[in-house]
Amino acid sequence: MALNTEQRVRRAAVKLFADKGFHGTGIRDLAQAAKISSASLYHYMGTKEELLASIMRECLDRLLLGAREATAEVADPRERLASLVALHVLTHGLQPAETRVVDNEVHALSPAEKRRIIRLRDDYEHLWAETIDEGIDKGVFHDEQPAVTRLALLEMCTGVARWYSAKGPLSLQELAAQHARLALRMLGGTDSDCRGAVRRAGEVVTSVWRTPL
Amino acid sequence: MALNTEQRVRRAAVKLFADKGFHGTGIRDLAQAAKISSASLYHYMGTKEELLASIMRECLDRLLLGAREATAEVADPRERLASLVALHVLTHGLQPAETRVVDNEVHALSPAEKRRIIRLRDDYEHLWAETIDEGIDKGVFHDEQPAVTRLALLEMCTGVARWYSAKGPLSLQELAAQHARLALRMLGGTDSDCRGAVRRAGEVVTSVWRTPL
Repeated sequence: MALNTEQRVRRAAVKLFADKGFHGTGIRDLAQAAKISSASLYHYMGTKEELLASIMRECLDRLLLGAREATAEVADPRERLASLVALHVLTHGLQPAETRVVDNEVHALSPAEKRRIIRLRDDYEHLWAETIDEGIDKGVFHDEQPAVTRLALLEMCTGVARWYSAKGPLSLQELAAQHARLALRMLGGTDSDCRGAVRRAGEVVTSVWRTPL
Repeated sequence: MALNTEQRVRRAAVKLFADKGFHGTGIRDLAQAAKISSASLYHYMGTKEELLASIMRECLDRLLLGAREATAEVADPRERLASLVALHVLTHGLQPAETRVVDNEVHALSPAEKRRIIRLRDDYEHLWAETIDEGIDKGVFHDEQPAVTRLALLEMCTGVARWYSAKGPLSLQELAAQHARLALRMLGGTDSDCRGAVRRAGEVVTSVWRTPL
Protein backbone atom coordinates (compact mmCIF):
# COMPACT_ATOMS: atom_id res chain seq x y z
CA MET A 1 0.00 0.00 0.00
CA ALA A 2 1.54 3.36 -1.04
CA LEU A 3 1.80 5.98 1.70
CA ASN A 4 0.29 9.39 1.11
CA THR A 5 2.40 12.52 1.68
CA GLU A 6 1.21 13.04 5.24
CA GLN A 7 1.99 9.46 6.21
CA ARG A 8 5.40 9.71 4.55
CA VAL A 9 6.21 12.88 6.49
CA ARG A 10 5.06 11.38 9.81
CA ARG A 11 7.07 8.24 9.26
CA ALA A 12 10.21 10.21 8.38
CA ALA A 13 9.67 12.49 11.39
CA VAL A 14 9.28 9.59 13.84
CA LYS A 15 12.51 8.06 12.60
CA LEU A 16 14.47 11.32 12.72
CA PHE A 17 13.11 12.44 16.10
CA ALA A 18 13.90 8.99 17.53
CA ASP A 19 17.43 8.90 16.11
CA LYS A 20 18.55 12.53 16.46
CA GLY A 21 16.08 14.00 18.96
CA PHE A 22 13.56 16.74 18.23
CA HIS A 23 16.11 19.53 18.64
CA GLY A 24 18.69 17.65 16.59
CA THR A 25 16.32 17.35 13.60
CA GLY A 26 16.18 20.25 11.13
CA ILE A 27 13.27 21.14 8.82
CA ARG A 28 15.57 20.38 5.89
CA ASP A 29 16.36 16.88 7.24
CA LEU A 30 12.61 16.25 7.45
CA ALA A 31 11.85 17.57 3.97
CA GLN A 32 14.71 15.56 2.50
CA ALA A 33 13.71 12.32 4.26
CA ALA A 34 10.06 12.75 3.18
CA LYS A 35 11.15 13.75 -0.35
CA ILE A 36 9.24 17.06 -0.47
CA SER A 37 10.18 20.75 -0.30
CA SER A 38 10.32 22.64 3.01
CA ALA A 39 7.37 24.78 1.83
CA SER A 40 5.22 21.69 1.10
CA LEU A 41 6.26 20.25 4.45
CA TYR A 42 4.87 23.33 6.18
CA HIS A 43 1.71 23.14 4.06
CA TYR A 44 1.09 19.52 5.07
CA MET A 45 2.25 19.49 8.66
CA GLY A 46 2.60 23.04 10.04
CA THR A 47 5.61 23.76 12.21
CA LYS A 48 8.04 21.15 13.52
CA GLU A 49 6.47 21.62 17.00
CA GLU A 50 2.99 20.94 15.60
CA LEU A 51 4.26 17.84 13.85
CA LEU A 52 5.79 16.50 17.08
CA ALA A 53 2.63 17.22 19.08
CA SER A 54 0.47 15.58 16.43
CA ILE A 55 2.64 12.43 16.38
CA MET A 56 2.54 12.13 20.17
CA ARG A 57 -1.22 12.69 20.33
CA GLU A 58 -1.82 10.07 17.66
CA CYS A 59 0.38 7.49 19.45
CA LEU A 60 -1.33 8.02 22.79
CA ASP A 61 -4.87 8.30 21.36
CA ARG A 62 -4.41 4.99 19.64
CA LEU A 63 -2.90 3.33 22.70
CA LEU A 64 -5.79 4.54 24.86
CA LEU A 65 -8.38 3.40 22.30
CA GLY A 66 -6.65 0.03 21.97
CA ALA A 67 -6.47 -0.46 25.74
CA ARG A 68 -10.17 0.33 26.10
CA GLU A 69 -11.05 -2.14 23.35
CA ALA A 70 -8.85 -4.87 24.78
CA THR A 71 -10.46 -4.59 28.23
CA ALA A 72 -14.03 -3.47 27.46
CA GLU A 73 -15.85 -6.74 27.89
CA VAL A 74 -13.48 -8.42 30.32
CA ALA A 75 -14.93 -8.67 33.83
CA ASP A 76 -12.06 -10.41 35.66
CA PRO A 77 -9.36 -7.89 36.70
CA ARG A 78 -6.67 -10.56 36.23
CA GLU A 79 -7.69 -11.08 32.60
CA ARG A 80 -7.94 -7.31 32.14
CA LEU A 81 -4.45 -6.71 33.52
CA ALA A 82 -3.04 -9.50 31.35
CA SER A 83 -4.68 -7.85 28.30
CA LEU A 84 -3.28 -4.41 29.16
CA VAL A 85 0.20 -5.88 29.57
CA ALA A 86 -0.04 -7.90 26.35
CA LEU A 87 -1.26 -4.90 24.33
CA HIS A 88 1.47 -2.65 25.76
CA VAL A 89 4.21 -5.18 25.00
CA LEU A 90 2.98 -5.92 21.46
CA THR A 91 2.57 -2.26 20.47
CA HIS A 92 5.81 -1.05 22.05
CA GLY A 93 7.78 -3.96 20.61
CA LEU A 94 6.37 -3.12 17.16
CA GLN A 95 7.05 0.62 17.53
CA PRO A 96 10.43 1.25 19.16
CA ALA A 97 10.92 4.59 17.38
CA GLU A 98 7.47 5.94 18.40
CA THR A 99 8.21 4.84 21.98
CA ARG A 100 11.47 6.81 22.07
CA VAL A 101 9.75 9.93 20.73
CA VAL A 102 6.80 9.77 23.14
CA ASP A 103 9.07 9.01 26.11
CA ASN A 104 11.95 11.41 25.42
CA GLU A 105 10.51 14.50 23.74
CA VAL A 106 7.69 15.66 26.01
CA HIS A 107 10.01 18.47 27.20
CA ALA A 108 10.02 19.91 23.65
CA LEU A 109 6.24 20.55 23.61
CA SER A 110 4.56 23.88 24.34
CA PRO A 111 2.94 24.06 27.80
CA ALA A 112 -0.57 23.63 26.35
CA GLU A 113 0.44 20.60 24.25
CA LYS A 114 2.35 19.15 27.19
CA ARG A 115 -0.81 19.30 29.30
CA ARG A 116 -2.80 17.50 26.58
CA ILE A 117 -0.21 14.75 26.31
CA ILE A 118 0.05 14.34 30.07
CA ARG A 119 -3.75 14.09 30.29
CA LEU A 120 -3.76 11.31 27.68
CA ARG A 121 -1.02 9.48 29.58
CA ASP A 122 -2.92 9.88 32.84
CA ASP A 123 -6.09 8.48 31.22
CA TYR A 124 -4.12 5.50 30.00
CA GLU A 125 -2.46 4.88 33.37
CA HIS A 126 -5.85 5.23 35.02
CA LEU A 127 -7.02 2.11 33.17
CA TRP A 128 -4.12 0.23 34.77
CA ALA A 129 -4.73 1.75 38.21
CA GLU A 130 -8.44 0.90 38.31
CA THR A 131 -7.76 -2.65 37.14
CA ILE A 132 -5.16 -3.16 39.87
CA ASP A 133 -7.36 -1.55 42.54
CA GLU A 134 -10.35 -3.68 41.56
CA GLY A 135 -8.24 -6.82 41.77
CA ILE A 136 -7.10 -5.85 45.27
CA ASP A 137 -10.69 -5.04 46.33
CA LYS A 138 -11.86 -8.41 45.04
CA GLY A 139 -9.02 -10.20 46.81
CA VAL A 140 -7.45 -11.65 43.64
CA PHE A 141 -4.44 -9.30 43.84
CA HIS A 142 -2.31 -8.63 46.92
CA ASP A 143 0.12 -5.73 47.04
CA GLU A 144 1.52 -3.22 49.55
CA GLN A 145 2.29 -0.41 47.11
CA PRO A 146 -0.01 -0.63 44.08
CA ALA A 147 0.99 2.81 42.73
CA VAL A 148 4.67 1.79 42.68
CA THR A 149 3.79 -1.57 41.16
CA ARG A 150 1.86 0.16 38.35
CA LEU A 151 4.92 2.28 37.47
CA ALA A 152 7.21 -0.76 37.72
CA LEU A 153 4.89 -2.69 35.39
CA LEU A 154 4.77 0.10 32.82
CA GLU A 155 8.57 0.46 32.82
CA MET A 156 9.01 -3.28 32.48
CA CYS A 157 6.59 -3.47 29.52
CA THR A 158 7.83 -0.32 27.75
CA GLY A 159 11.35 -1.72 28.13
CA VAL A 160 10.55 -4.32 25.48
CA ALA A 161 10.82 -1.48 22.92
CA ARG A 162 14.43 -0.99 24.04
CA TRP A 163 15.66 -4.56 23.75
CA TYR A 164 13.32 -6.61 21.55
CA SER A 165 14.65 -7.74 18.20
CA ALA A 166 12.60 -9.58 15.60
CA LYS A 167 15.74 -11.70 15.07
CA GLY A 168 15.66 -12.97 18.67
CA PRO A 169 14.57 -16.48 19.67
CA LEU A 170 11.10 -15.49 20.97
CA SER A 171 8.16 -14.00 19.10
CA LEU A 172 6.56 -10.81 20.35
CA GLN A 173 3.50 -12.88 21.32
CA GLU A 174 5.65 -15.12 23.51
CA LEU A 175 7.21 -12.05 25.14
CA ALA A 176 3.75 -10.57 25.69
CA ALA A 177 2.58 -13.79 27.37
CA GLN A 178 5.65 -13.94 29.62
CA HIS A 179 5.23 -10.29 30.66
CA ALA A 180 1.55 -10.88 31.41
CA ARG A 181 2.48 -13.86 33.60
CA LEU A 182 5.11 -11.77 35.41
CA ALA A 183 2.54 -9.00 35.98
CA LEU A 184 0.05 -11.40 37.55
CA ARG A 185 2.74 -12.79 39.82
CA MET A 186 3.93 -9.31 40.82
CA LEU A 187 0.41 -8.68 42.08
CA GLY A 188 0.32 -11.95 43.96
CA GLY A 189 -2.18 -13.37 41.48
CA THR A 190 -2.50 -17.01 40.51
CA ASP A 191 -0.53 -18.25 37.55
CA SER A 192 -2.14 -18.38 34.13
CA ASP A 193 -0.79 -19.05 30.65
CA CYS A 194 -2.26 -15.69 29.45
CA ARG A 195 -2.80 -16.98 25.93
CA GLY A 196 -6.35 -15.59 25.77
CA ALA A 197 -5.13 -12.12 26.71
CA VAL A 198 -2.38 -12.20 24.08
CA ARG A 199 -4.84 -13.34 21.39
CA ARG A 200 -7.28 -10.57 22.30
CA ALA A 201 -4.51 -7.94 22.34
CA GLY A 202 -3.28 -9.18 18.96
CA GLU A 203 -6.75 -8.70 17.47
CA VAL A 204 -6.87 -5.14 18.80
CA VAL A 205 -3.44 -4.39 17.29
CA THR A 206 -4.68 -5.62 13.93
CA SER A 207 -7.88 -3.54 14.07
CA VAL A 208 -6.64 -0.32 15.76
CA TRP A 209 -3.05 -0.09 14.46
CA ARG A 210 -3.86 -1.89 11.17
CA THR A 211 -0.61 -3.78 11.63
CA PRO A 212 -0.66 -7.52 11.11
CA LEU A 213 1.40 -9.30 13.74
CA MET B 1 33.97 19.04 49.68
CA ALA B 2 35.30 21.04 46.70
CA LEU B 3 35.44 19.18 43.42
CA ASN B 4 38.71 19.05 41.52
CA THR B 5 38.83 20.04 37.85
CA GLU B 6 38.43 16.52 36.54
CA GLN B 7 35.37 15.90 38.73
CA ARG B 8 33.88 19.25 37.68
CA VAL B 9 34.32 18.38 34.00
CA ARG B 10 32.81 14.91 34.44
CA ARG B 11 29.84 16.27 36.31
CA ALA B 12 29.20 18.97 33.69
CA ALA B 13 29.58 16.41 30.90
CA VAL B 14 27.11 13.96 32.46
CA LYS B 15 24.53 16.72 32.78
CA LEU B 16 25.02 18.02 29.24
CA PHE B 17 25.14 14.58 27.60
CA ALA B 18 21.97 13.62 29.49
CA ASP B 19 20.10 16.80 28.58
CA LYS B 20 21.27 17.44 25.02
CA GLY B 21 22.74 14.11 23.95
CA PHE B 22 26.39 13.46 23.10
CA HIS B 23 26.08 14.82 19.56
CA GLY B 24 24.10 17.84 20.76
CA THR B 25 26.87 18.85 23.19
CA GLY B 26 29.73 20.98 21.87
CA ILE B 27 33.24 21.24 23.32
CA ARG B 28 32.51 24.90 24.09
CA ASP B 29 29.35 23.99 26.07
CA LEU B 30 31.47 21.59 28.10
CA ALA B 31 34.26 24.08 28.74
CA GLN B 32 31.77 26.78 29.71
CA ALA B 33 29.83 24.51 32.07
CA ALA B 34 33.04 23.30 33.73
CA LYS B 35 34.42 26.86 33.80
CA ILE B 36 37.69 26.11 32.02
CA SER B 37 39.11 26.81 28.55
CA SER B 38 38.67 24.35 25.67
CA ALA B 39 42.46 23.79 25.69
CA SER B 40 42.45 22.88 29.41
CA LEU B 41 39.45 20.66 28.80
CA TYR B 42 41.44 18.69 26.25
CA HIS B 43 44.42 18.56 28.61
CA TYR B 44 42.32 17.09 31.44
CA MET B 45 39.94 14.84 29.53
CA GLY B 46 41.14 14.23 25.97
CA THR B 47 38.56 14.26 23.21
CA LYS B 48 34.80 14.40 23.76
CA GLU B 49 34.64 10.73 22.71
CA GLU B 50 37.26 9.77 25.30
CA LEU B 51 35.35 11.68 27.96
CA LEU B 52 32.10 9.86 27.12
CA ALA B 53 33.82 6.47 27.14
CA SER B 54 35.52 7.22 30.44
CA ILE B 55 32.22 8.27 32.07
CA MET B 56 30.46 5.12 30.87
CA ARG B 57 33.31 2.87 31.99
CA GLU B 58 33.36 4.48 35.43
CA CYS B 59 29.58 4.09 35.86
CA LEU B 60 29.61 0.44 34.86
CA ASP B 61 32.83 -0.43 36.74
CA ARG B 62 31.34 0.96 39.89
CA LEU B 63 28.00 -0.77 39.38
CA LEU B 64 29.75 -4.09 38.81
CA LEU B 65 31.98 -3.62 41.86
CA GLY B 66 28.96 -2.62 43.97
CA ALA B 67 26.92 -5.59 42.81
CA ARG B 68 29.77 -7.98 43.63
CA GLU B 69 30.14 -6.47 47.10
CA ALA B 70 26.42 -6.56 47.79
CA THR B 71 26.18 -10.26 46.92
CA ALA B 72 29.64 -11.61 47.88
CA GLU B 73 28.80 -13.27 51.17
CA VAL B 74 25.14 -14.01 50.52
CA ALA B 75 24.45 -17.70 49.97
CA ASP B 76 20.67 -17.67 49.43
CA PRO B 77 19.82 -16.75 45.81
CA ARG B 78 16.63 -15.03 46.98
CA GLU B 79 18.62 -12.72 49.26
CA ARG B 80 21.18 -12.20 46.50
CA LEU B 81 18.52 -11.24 43.96
CA ALA B 82 16.88 -8.86 46.44
CA SER B 83 20.29 -7.23 47.03
CA LEU B 84 20.97 -6.85 43.30
CA VAL B 85 17.53 -5.26 42.80
CA ALA B 86 17.91 -2.95 45.80
CA LEU B 87 21.38 -1.79 44.70
CA HIS B 88 20.19 -1.19 41.12
CA VAL B 89 17.16 0.82 42.28
CA LEU B 90 19.12 2.91 44.79
CA THR B 91 21.95 3.77 42.41
CA HIS B 92 19.73 4.47 39.38
CA GLY B 93 17.32 6.56 41.45
CA LEU B 94 20.28 8.59 42.72
CA GLN B 95 21.83 8.97 39.25
CA PRO B 96 19.16 9.66 36.63
CA ALA B 97 21.54 11.65 34.41
CA GLU B 98 24.24 8.95 34.44
CA THR B 99 21.54 6.39 33.59
CA ARG B 100 20.41 8.35 30.55
CA VAL B 101 23.98 8.69 29.28
CA VAL B 102 24.86 5.01 29.76
CA ASP B 103 21.57 3.86 28.21
CA ASN B 104 21.29 6.28 25.29
CA GLU B 105 24.80 7.05 24.08
CA VAL B 106 26.41 3.66 23.47
CA HIS B 107 25.92 4.27 19.73
CA ALA B 108 28.30 7.27 19.95
CA LEU B 109 31.28 5.14 21.07
CA SER B 110 34.05 3.85 18.84
CA PRO B 111 33.77 0.13 18.03
CA ALA B 112 36.57 -0.77 20.49
CA GLU B 113 35.02 1.26 23.32
CA LYS B 114 31.59 -0.12 22.51
CA ARG B 115 32.95 -3.64 22.93
CA ARG B 116 34.45 -2.74 26.32
CA ILE B 117 31.18 -1.23 27.53
CA ILE B 118 29.12 -4.16 26.28
CA ARG B 119 31.51 -6.55 28.05
CA LEU B 120 31.04 -4.67 31.35
CA ARG B 121 27.26 -4.77 30.89
CA ASP B 122 27.40 -8.47 30.10
CA ASP B 123 29.46 -9.12 33.25
CA TYR B 124 26.90 -7.21 35.29
CA GLU B 125 23.94 -9.03 33.76
CA HIS B 126 25.75 -12.30 34.29
CA LEU B 127 25.55 -11.73 38.07
CA TRP B 128 21.77 -11.49 37.70
CA ALA B 129 21.58 -14.50 35.38
CA GLU B 130 23.59 -16.81 37.63
CA THR B 131 21.58 -15.76 40.69
CA ILE B 132 18.29 -16.51 38.90
CA ASP B 133 19.58 -19.80 37.51
CA GLU B 134 20.83 -20.92 40.91
CA GLY B 135 17.44 -20.10 42.45
CA ILE B 136 15.73 -22.21 39.80
CA ASP B 137 18.19 -25.08 40.30
CA LYS B 138 17.60 -25.00 44.05
CA GLY B 139 13.83 -24.92 43.54
CA VAL B 140 13.30 -21.56 45.29
CA PHE B 141 12.52 -19.78 41.99
CA HIS B 142 10.10 -20.98 39.34
CA ASP B 143 10.06 -19.44 35.88
CA GLU B 144 9.44 -20.47 32.27
CA GLN B 145 11.63 -17.84 30.59
CA PRO B 146 14.41 -16.73 32.95
CA ALA B 147 16.29 -14.78 30.26
CA VAL B 148 13.18 -12.68 29.50
CA THR B 149 12.51 -12.22 33.20
CA ARG B 150 16.06 -10.93 33.73
CA LEU B 151 15.58 -8.27 31.04
CA ALA B 152 12.13 -7.38 32.41
CA LEU B 153 13.60 -6.99 35.89
CA LEU B 154 16.43 -4.77 34.69
CA GLU B 155 14.03 -2.53 32.74
CA MET B 156 11.70 -2.30 35.72
CA CYS B 157 14.54 -1.32 38.08
CA THR B 158 16.28 1.08 35.67
CA GLY B 159 12.88 2.71 35.13
CA VAL B 160 13.08 4.19 38.63
CA ALA B 161 15.66 6.64 37.21
CA ARG B 162 12.98 7.86 34.79
CA TRP B 163 10.18 8.53 37.28
CA TYR B 164 11.55 8.79 40.82
CA SER B 165 11.46 12.19 42.45
CA ALA B 166 12.91 12.96 45.88
CA LYS B 167 9.76 15.05 46.43
CA GLY B 168 7.50 11.97 46.07
CA PRO B 169 5.80 10.24 48.99
CA LEU B 170 8.19 7.26 49.19
CA SER B 171 11.90 7.19 50.00
CA LEU B 172 14.31 5.50 47.64
CA GLN B 173 14.79 2.78 50.28
CA GLU B 174 11.05 2.06 50.30
CA LEU B 175 11.06 1.91 46.48
CA ALA B 176 14.05 -0.43 46.57
CA ALA B 177 12.26 -2.73 49.04
CA GLN B 178 9.08 -2.78 46.94
CA HIS B 179 11.03 -3.57 43.76
CA ALA B 180 12.88 -6.36 45.56
CA ARG B 181 9.56 -7.85 46.70
CA LEU B 182 8.18 -7.61 43.15
CA ALA B 183 11.30 -9.34 41.81
CA LEU B 184 10.96 -12.26 44.21
CA ARG B 185 7.29 -12.64 43.28
CA MET B 186 8.08 -12.49 39.54
CA LEU B 187 10.31 -15.49 40.08
CA GLY B 188 7.66 -17.34 42.02
CA GLY B 189 9.61 -16.90 45.26
CA THR B 190 8.14 -16.58 48.70
CA ASP B 191 7.35 -13.13 50.04
CA SER B 192 9.90 -11.30 52.19
CA ASP B 193 10.09 -7.73 53.47
CA CYS B 194 13.55 -7.38 51.88
CA ARG B 195 14.74 -4.94 54.54
CA GLY B 196 18.05 -6.75 55.03
CA ALA B 197 18.80 -6.54 51.32
CA VAL B 198 18.03 -2.81 51.20
CA ARG B 199 20.24 -2.15 54.24
CA ARG B 200 23.12 -4.10 52.70
CA ALA B 201 22.72 -2.30 49.35
CA GLY B 202 22.63 1.06 51.14
CA GLU B 203 25.94 0.29 52.85
CA VAL B 204 27.51 -0.58 49.49
CA VAL B 205 26.24 2.69 47.98
CA THR B 206 27.85 4.60 50.83
CA SER B 207 31.19 2.79 50.49
CA VAL B 208 31.49 2.41 46.69
CA TRP B 209 29.71 5.56 45.46
CA ARG B 210 30.66 7.61 48.55
CA THR B 211 27.11 8.96 48.46
CA PRO B 212 25.22 9.04 51.74
CA LEU B 213 21.60 7.97 51.24
